[in-house]
Amino acid sequence: MKSQRLDFVTDVPTPTTFPRDPHDTDGTRPEVVSYGDDRRARGLRTLAEITGESGERVVDRLRDIAPDFADWIIDFSYGDVMARPGLDRRSRQLATIAALTALGNAQPQLRVHIVGALNVGCRPQEVIEVILQMAVFAGFPAAINALTVAREVFEQATG
Amino acid sequence: MKSQRLDFVTDVPTPTTFPRDPHDTDGTRPEVVSYGDDRRARGLRTLAEITGESGERVVDRLRDIAPDFADWIIDFSYGDVMARPGLDRRSRQLATIAALTALGNAQPQLRVHIVGALNVGCRPQEVIEVILQMAVFAGFPAAINALTVAREVFEQATG
Amino acid sequence: MKSQRLDFVTDVPTPTTFPRDPHDTDGTRPEVVSYGDDRRARGLRTLAEITGESGERVVDRLRDIAPDFADWIIDFSYGDVMARPGLDRRSRQLATIAALTALGNAQPQLRVHIVGALNVGCRPQEVIEVILQMAVFAGFPAAINALTVAREVFEQATG
Amino acid sequence: MKSQRLDFVTDVPTPTTFPRDPHDTDGTRPEVVSYGDDRRARGLRTLAEITGESGERVVDRLRDIAPDFADWIIDFSYGDVMARPGLDRRSRQLATIAALTALGNAQPQLRVHIVGALNVGCRPQEVIEVILQMAVFAGFPAAINALTVAREVFEQATG
Amino acid sequence: MKSQRLDFVTDVPTPTTFPRDPHDTDGTRPEVVSYGDDRRARGLRTLAEITGESGERVVDRLRDIAPDFADWIIDFSYGDVMARPGLDRRSRQLATIAALTALGNAQPQLRVHIVGALNVGCRPQEVIEVILQMAVFAGFPAAINALTVAREVFEQATG
Amino acid sequence: MKSQRLDFVTDVPTPTTFPRDPHDTDGTRPEVVSYGDDRRARGLRTLAEITGESGERVVDRLRDIAPDFADWIIDFSYGDVMARPGLDRRSRQLATIAALTALGNAQPQLRVHIVGALNVGCRPQEVIEVILQMAVFAGFPAAINALTVAREVFEQATG
Repeated sequence: MKSQRLDFVTDVPTPTTFPRDPHDTDGTRPEVVSYGDDRRARGLRTLAEITGESGERVVDRLRDIAPDFADWIIDFSYGDVMARPGLDRRSRQLATIAALTALGNAQPQLRVHIVGALNVGCRPQEVIEVILQMAVFAGFPAAINALTVAREVFEQATG
Repeated sequence: MKSQRLDFVTDVPTPTTFPRDPHDTDGTRPEVVSYGDDRRARGLRTLAEITGESGERVVDRLRDIAPDFADWIIDFSYGDVMARPGLDRRSRQLATIAALTALGNAQPQLRVHIVGALNVGCRPQEVIEVILQMAVFAGFPAAINALTVAREVFEQATG
Repeated sequence: MKSQRLDFVTDVPTPTTFPRDPHDTDGTRPEVVSYGDDRRARGLRTLAEITGESGERVVDRLRDIAPDFADWIIDFSYGDVMARPGLDRRSRQLATIAALTALGNAQPQLRVHIVGALNVGCRPQEVIEVILQMAVFAGFPAAINALTVAREVFEQATG
Repeated sequence: MKSQRLDFVTDVPTPTTFPRDPHDTDGTRPEVVSYGDDRRARGLRTLAEITGESGERVVDRLRDIAPDFADWIIDFSYGDVMARPGLDRRSRQLATIAALTALGNAQPQLRVHIVGALNVGCRPQEVIEVILQMAVFAGFPAAINALTVAREVFEQATG
Repeated sequence: MKSQRLDFVTDVPTPTTFPRDPHDTDGTRPEVVSYGDDRRARGLRTLAEITGESGERVVDRLRDIAPDFADWIIDFSYGDVMARPGLDRRSRQLATIAALTALGNAQPQLRVHIVGALNVGCRPQEVIEVILQMAVFAGFPAAINALTVAREVFEQATG
Repeated sequence: MKSQRLDFVTDVPTPTTFPRDPHDTDGTRPEVVSYGDDRRARGLRTLAEITGESGERVVDRLRDIAPDFADWIIDFSYGDVMARPGLDRRSRQLATIAALTALGNAQPQLRVHIVGALNVGCRPQEVIEVILQMAVFAGFPAAINALTVAREVFEQATG
């Protein structure tokens, strides 16, 4: 079920640059770590680094009703996706804020990821710039409602 | 990072009912199979059973530009999620058709999952019923556009 | 304004089974009966069976500002659509939960239809499975927010 | 299941102002016409007046796969909703164009309703004004894509 | 970067019909007023006429976190877009209500623009008619949630 | 209509740095310069730098049907918003790609902004990373459809 790579995708992270199962010497699938434990450890570390307590609280609250879903957030969302090389954490958080602002129906997640943006070194003004830009692509109401969330996060952060 | 289960969630699949690493005797995380190979095998089997060639073609086409993403579809979407017990395949496909019809911006995926619905034993009329119902929840345009996709799938299936 | 039926849609009710005027006494396909009163009675019965008090409260609250709209919910949404044969009630409720979870902007309706799913015999875990599956098709935020609604419904149901 | 009307809703059409079964003198349900034939006739007339051939073609095409759905468009969408008094046809079409432009995933319906707007007397520039305004509320991409549809309709109308 | 006008767009406001810098006699850019002060003045006037205090409060609240964004609302949204000739204010507000109802994720803005609709002379029933119509194009949940907002606005307006 | 600045937003340009009238010669914050000509020039330059021919073609095509809208794209979207300091161009393009991928109904604009991302120095893999990340926040279908657009852009760029 393999097909040729596009030549122009020259900068797909090579196996040597990606943490993986030490016993795996096959270079064709650099990011798929064969052991769940690795995904779990990488996911927990990434979740903590990006969202800090706020994200862990969300995951923890989900354990009563959907424990496997809580694990997916750790293993897949943070272990497989957010921990990937090839894009810096600041860009990943700003891209997430752009998407959640545009979707406009995920305020709780927007709050967590604005906190996450500050945690990985984004300046408040960079967060604001991304939200303002969404007025062009998703309309003014989406941007206004995201600014309301951002203000609350900033006020708590400085309260 | 554990919290108590809700008592009413009495029917969360117990470890004994879920295929998992035979060496894993800990019942706290029934669905997380520790070996990537298991997720891969379960994902490939589930992908084939539900989508047949159409889904495999989608995954295969993604390998050139995003090989890891292609693996996520197999390992996560089909290995972790769609393969779960607790809901029959027919209900899963009808729920997917409902969501893609309501979202209205995922025609290619709607096509794949209508094929998938027929593959797992849904009758054409059941697919149509779900789409018609979406007129109430997502509006008539969403339902009309999904019916257009369904017609094409049915005509090919019978062509 | 008729066009030929698609041959493959073998289970689409044929015109001969469509009671289309008051002299037609065939009761097998009630949903296109010509009398508004029938739609009303069928709608009220279906609304009560699926949503119980919660749905009736919603309809009742709408009477002050939009009495005709309240009637449409009864006559069209429940009398014409949700009462249709061809798909069982459990599948209809799970499809509705899938759509409302994916849309992500209809929490009050999601609440009513999770209650409705339990009313027609869906198990809490089946509702959860549909919501978890939406993480694949509509993203994790949509699923997380729907799980929050589901927890509240389940806690009230068991409280 | 009745609740008091809001006093300020003084202009809800009263039974005497709404076309209904001449034999029905009960004022409690002004818009629910008791005879399907009345909804059907009113719906067909309204569909023809607003969308002309383009809408009838859409309905006709749906008859093969979902004949009841085709009837709902006539009876509910046009017979119950679009035929209502209390808002002029031009405003209804412009509101529909606004919504379909903002949703951004219903191009075929947008086309039909731009044609409909011209049919009921809207000037091309009024259609354009509504679409331009959506740049503020739904973003520039939504407006750009709707303008593309509008241009095609206008060119055909003048071709 | 000019291209020919479509002949059928005969009613694009010509320079002479559009308020602009009196010193500007060049007809090539009818709507672009060259002086920011004109956009500002026109925007503030239009914002006040349409939204009254409610809109000014929104803009004012935005000044602490995004002062330029607050200016964009005045200069672009109201000075450039909402102040345009070619469509009456009532139609503009009803189109905005249609879009915000259909989007379903902008309740605060829907509130402001329902107030705005009443301010520019729309009757409560016209607002309700537009919202009811959205049940056809965006589904019943979107319409129900918008009716809830409308009721609150109407009750305050008459309280 | 001013309100106090939030103290924590330390990098929001202070009023003294806002050139607000023609006599202000401080060039550090061009985006609120009072002269339309400046917005026009800045917008055209930014549009050309980011989107190159692809964006200019879009704007040019809009001139026949909505010349003022074409100007808004130049003056507002690029002159006021995209030209702002406070966020680098690469981050702005990646945020735009995230939003358009998540919205899922703006393929033509996604194409233009993937081209734009490459024009301002983003690597193809960075574009892919943002799109893959959207699988978490907007679902796999949104990511799959955006990857299809990205592949076409990359193939043309390297073809």
